[in-house]
Amino acid sequence: MAAGVYACTAGSALADNILAAVSSPGHVLDVTVQLTGDGRLAYEVQRKGKPLIAPSRLGFILTNAPALDGGFSLAGQSVSEHDDTWEQPWGERRYVRNHYKELRVDVAQRSVNGRKLAVVFRVFDDGIGFRYEFPNQPQLGDVKIADELTEFVVAPPATAWWQPAGELLALEYPITKTPLREVGMANTPMTIRTEDGTHVAFHEAALVDYASMWLRKVEGQKLRAHLAPSSTGPAVERHGAFTTPWRTLQIADNAADLYMSDLILNLNEPNKLGNVSWVKPTKFVGVWWEMHLDQTTWASGKRHGATTANTKRYIDFAAKNGFGGVLVEGWNKGWDGNWVGYQSNFSYTQAYPDFDLKAVTAYAKSKGVRLIGHHETGGNIANYEKQMDAGYKLYASLGVDSIKSGYVTDAGTALFPEKNGKTHFGFTDSQEGSRHYLKAVTEAARYRIAIDTHEPIKDTGLRRTYPNWLSREGARGMEFNAWGNPINGVDHEVNLVFTRMLSGPMDYTPGILSLAGQKGKPLNSTQAKQLASFVVIYSPVVMAADLIENYEKYPGPFKFIKDVPADWADTRVLHGQMGEYATIARKDRRSDDWYVGSVTDGNARTLALPLSFLDAGRSYVAEIYRDGDTADYRNEHRFDIVIEKKTVTAADTLALKLAPGGGQAIRFSPASAAPTTAQ
Amino acid sequence: MAAGVYACTAGSALADNILAAVSSPGHVLDVTVQLTGDGRLAYEVQRKGKPLIAPSRLGFILTNAPALDGGFSLAGQSVSEHDDTWEQPWGERRYVRNHYKELRVDVAQRSVNGRKLAVVFRVFDDGIGFRYEFPNQPQLGDVKIADELTEFVVAPPATAWWQPAGELLALEYPITKTPLREVGMANTPMTIRTEDGTHVAFHEAALVDYASMWLRKVEGQKLRAHLAPSSTGPAVERHGAFTTPWRTLQIADNAADLYMSDLILNLNEPNKLGNVSWVKPTKFVGVWWEMHLDQTTWASGKRHGATTANTKRYIDFAAKNGFGGVLVEGWNKGWDGNWVGYQSNFSYTQAYPDFDLKAVTAYAKSKGVRLIGHHETGGNIANYEKQMDAGYKLYASLGVDSIKSGYVTDAGTALFPEKNGKTHFGFTDSQEGSRHYLKAVTEAARYRIAIDTHEPIKDTGLRRTYPNWLSREGARGMEFNAWGNPINGVDHEVNLVFTRMLSGPMDYTPGILSLAGQKGKPLNSTQAKQLASFVVIYSPVVMAADLIENYEKYPGPFKFIKDVPADWADTRVLHGQMGEYATIARKDRRSDDWYVGSVTDGNARTLALPLSFLDAGRSYVAEIYRDGDTADYRNEHRFDIVIEKKTVTAADTLALKLAPGGGQAIRFSPASAAPTTAQ
Repeated sequence: MAAGVYACTAGSALADNILAAVSSPGHVLDVTVQLTGDGRLAYEVQRKGKPLIAPSRLGFILTNAPALDGGFSLAGQSVSEHDDTWEQPWGERRYVRNHYKELRVDVAQRSVNGRKLAVVFRVFDDGIGFRYEFPNQPQLGDVKIADELTEFVVAPPATAWWQPAGELLALEYPITKTPLREVGMANTPMTIRTEDGTHVAFHEAALVDYASMWLRKVEGQKLRAHLAPSSTGPAVERHGAFTTPWRTLQIADNAADLYMSDLILNLNEPNKLGNVSWVKPTKFVGVWWEMHLDQTTWASGKRHGATTANTKRYIDFAAKNGFGGVLVEGWNKGWDGNWVGYQSNFSYTQAYPDFDLKAVTAYAKSKGVRLIGHHETGGNIANYEKQMDAGYKLYASLGVDSIKSGYVTDAGTALFPEKNGKTHFGFTDSQEGSRHYLKAVTEAARYRIAIDTHEPIKDTGLRRTYPNWLSREGARGMEFNAWGNPINGVDHEVNLVFTRMLSGPMDYTPGILSLAGQKGKPLNSTQAKQLASFVVIYSPVVMAADLIENYEKYPGPFKFIKDVPADWADTRVLHGQMGEYATIARKDRRSDDWYVGSVTDGNARTLALPLSFLDAGRSYVAEIYRDGDTADYRNEHRFDIVIEKKTVTAADTLALKLAPGGGQAIRFSPASAAPTTAQ
Repeated sequence: MAAGVYACTAGSALADNILAAVSSPGHVLDVTVQLTGDGRLAYEVQRKGKPLIAPSRLGFILTNAPALDGGFSLAGQSVSEHDDTWEQPWGERRYVRNHYKELRVDVAQRSVNGRKLAVVFRVFDDGIGFRYEFPNQPQLGDVKIADELTEFVVAPPATAWWQPAGELLALEYPITKTPLREVGMANTPMTIRTEDGTHVAFHEAALVDYASMWLRKVEGQKLRAHLAPSSTGPAVERHGAFTTPWRTLQIADNAADLYMSDLILNLNEPNKLGNVSWVKPTKFVGVWWEMHLDQTTWASGKRHGATTANTKRYIDFAAKNGFGGVLVEGWNKGWDGNWVGYQSNFSYTQAYPDFDLKAVTAYAKSKGVRLIGHHETGGNIANYEKQMDAGYKLYASLGVDSIKSGYVTDAGTALFPEKNGKTHFGFTDSQEGSRHYLKAVTEAARYRIAIDTHEPIKDTGLRRTYPNWLSREGARGMEFNAWGNPINGVDHEVNLVFTRMLSGPMDYTPGILSLAGQKGKPLNSTQAKQLASFVVIYSPVVMAADLIENYEKYPGPFKFIKDVPADWADTRVLHGQMGEYATIARKDRRSDDWYVGSVTDGNARTLALPLSFLDAGRSYVAEIYRDGDTADYRNEHRFDIVIEKKTVTAADTLALKLAPGGGQAIRFSPASAAPTTAQ
């Protein structure tokens, strides 16, 4: 027999009992919080009057105290409205409106010493965030969470774009499309499209000192939070008052609107770092693709890539072409032998003899270029934390103000330090992982260093609070196209836009104009698509990843890479269809230029592009980089690109003709002064 | 970037490398063990030359040492053959043949101090078991397992019959049928049927001092072991040499053959208890259904069910009708107030004042009936372990030789003792759960007491090793039909046979001839189906669960319940179709009688029943309990039953006509002596 039903025979109420309700400011979304049989807590979401999330459970199983999963009664509720606009120091847009209604529901478990818990919903017109608040209460001083019971029961039949969680490659699986019913355990953001076309992205915001939420399919279309496991006990251990991360549902009529949502950022705390003018969005080049092509090596020796001479070559190239930085991987001791996982033993202060760090940084400075630091850990976080401060200090002393960090190891095999000096293995998605990654960022901030984390914990919008957390990887990147095992699918960029990119910037390293990986194996892309990716896949630190000689070989398309900025005043998604195509327009933050990038999957298509985003009454020169008439990612015509100029106004509509696996990139520069009426 | 592929760029081999292979004795199944890129270990299964399990990973992630998931090389292999027949003290059949080929593969991780691991496959014609063996090695004295990486990648498209794992009701969800791709995380046994009709049941054998294996769908048809979590650290902690439970695949051409497999028992250790003649298969009645109907209560007071007087009434009834035992729930102090979960505080020695334990047991003894003890814990294992010995001792002193135990609480909220006297909450499916349940059985054996565990850890065949572990619940039982929230589906019994029942006996409490739960709400069954369930759902301790007055009201069908034994010499599955119907013939262990039970789902059907299982050349009287012509579970004709006698021989074929939601039960008694040729 089972407990819940057994208890019913003792006479407890079965009828649903609505505790509280709230609607979004524009009455698009309605949320109700209810008690079901046994005083279990649940919530429900309707959109435009139709059920979207059926009653879904809330609560926790604890290891050190009775479960917070039933016997609740209402202790209080309140509704408030919030509306303001805040400014990003850098980002996809300068100003962000934060408009929501907040419902706070306080519940108590009378039979368990009156223990309290609150659930706070922030309901926007474009989505919902909710989190749990644990008050400071003597009945539950230590909170040891075995499992979060938060459910997401999707009412209408839906299709999902997702990748498995907790598996070998962590966040780097291809994104697959299946019926929602076929999801196993998914990373977030996971995006679904219901049969009536509503798009919902499940994710979380402000993941601080807590385990990552994986989404596990229970049965049918019922998903449940599954906290990334700890190696030492409960998934989460906290003391006193705390709040969980926000569980988020971005909800829109279509994929384009979904990407326009600022909900994740809005749910994060404002900037805690003060003046962050030292955080500089940058385009850069680097000693990187040549290693992935196996032309040079990270390891020392004859083929060592990170030599002083090679780096100077990149610095010269960067200076000549207006790139702000040069990344050098493999500069420091530790790359010889097996450097992946616990065996790694990197030094963050000692360079290989053929790499003169001081000379390189001085040379870069003389050329107006900055070295971008590199801290690979191989997932040996214990080793890294011992040296992190020294590593930051060294870089800061040489004027290096941004670091790409890396945690290459299989999921579950990162090495974490213990207080007693011992170590243990675990998931970077764990609570201790969340602590480490944020510590790396806040410690770096003390040195005015920005961080670009690879093999990161997922992005949950913490860049708002810590604007020196510039970017991360956290998805299958360009390097898979070098290795070819397998290379990224032709729909990869489109899939990224409406899943991974909803969480924040990604250091995707686009711009492989040579369209070839190891042994010349071709990419699933045309040249124009490589250019479009600079606009479509947002990152404030953007690497033009190809070899110098390839950029020199293709000066035409390379011009767009030189021109495109890495920081934006505004962003508009002009077309979006899950897994098929995306067109994004972004306005340069330092000029009146607009840039458009459009990418498609394996299908050719022609999209109408009304230019109404441009200033009315003003003429622009459009520099168009488009797929040529024969362009096709499946054959040698992938290099067929047409570069042309047109004069256009906001009243015009362009036809974006995209080849199979193709794309288009356009720069719009004002040809006339802005009309005074538009100022 | 991801570790595995990154390493490939360093030049490691990608090509598959077969280490070892073995075929089943009759060459039905072929297993190969191989190394893939990075020295990762995998296995593959072919059946009759066709791929069944595509290459599937093997290994572990540890928390205290580097992962056992790659860098392996072959250290040795051996193949042996085993064939013997052993005798069960009780069971579905007396003699069990154990015929397999064993492949042992020893691997070592040279780069990790030469650490060793072995995988042992036992390959039968009707399935596979494999387990890991950890040797005693100084490089890995303590083994702390975060996660088992064992995969099951099903090659052909398949349909699954499964229920979710790790959720509220633990093992008591309805069994649902979905495409295998729609499985989330499943309990085992989970049964699948591939598109070519092959049936595979995934389960485990000999779960001892280890966490239960849940099966998590990764993506597509890839399943992975997911160990039930611990509340205090790694899922499993062991020291020195040990073996994991066997991961099992029972494989057959059809559902009937699947049920005929003895693979789970064969993979368990032989009887460790010596002479177990004190373990007695029994039919019983009890003070039970009346509480579920809310006519009486477990709690004390005016409506208390477990009174001396009421119990004597059941004893009289049992004695009169040949039942060996009487179960009484609610006899002991602790049922007042909330007794579910950590709040429970049962006494296992103090009876309520209106229940005179000594008088009742003495009265029972005088009538030739035994009291069946009852130990409900409410999941408070800490409280139970403190008193378990005293509880056993008391019962043993009064001649009570079997106990039904219970652990009613939500999944994850059982209360476990710690060595320091503290407690913590956790899953009964955990490693510490496996320790407790087995401890309860082995401690009981010291008092010659048999155990029938409710809300148990799943059955993995340990009854072979500990024959006093007579039965368990471990699935959705009859009580849901009393509560009606919701009642069990019309296909529930059929689903049980080819999923849950593959693991071992189930105390299903059939025989509700009144066909009604609380408030008279009807069951999804005909009367004949209730009788058939005594044969179809095997248990050596079988409760005729209905009220005395209902049995007195229906003396005709009740005769079958009085006649049917609880211990068998042989078992044959005569019809089986997943989720549709099942017909099972069993031979009484103490006579030459055969019994047949047949059940169907909501569909009427007529099945041909050749009687070739009977002794040839001998005539039998068949007492047939069949659905009447109007019988239908959906209306009042569910009570339409026809009882008739026929004389038959092995050469005859009966037509089993089953009504919607119906069944048929038959007793075959020899009408003539066995022919000497057949002796």
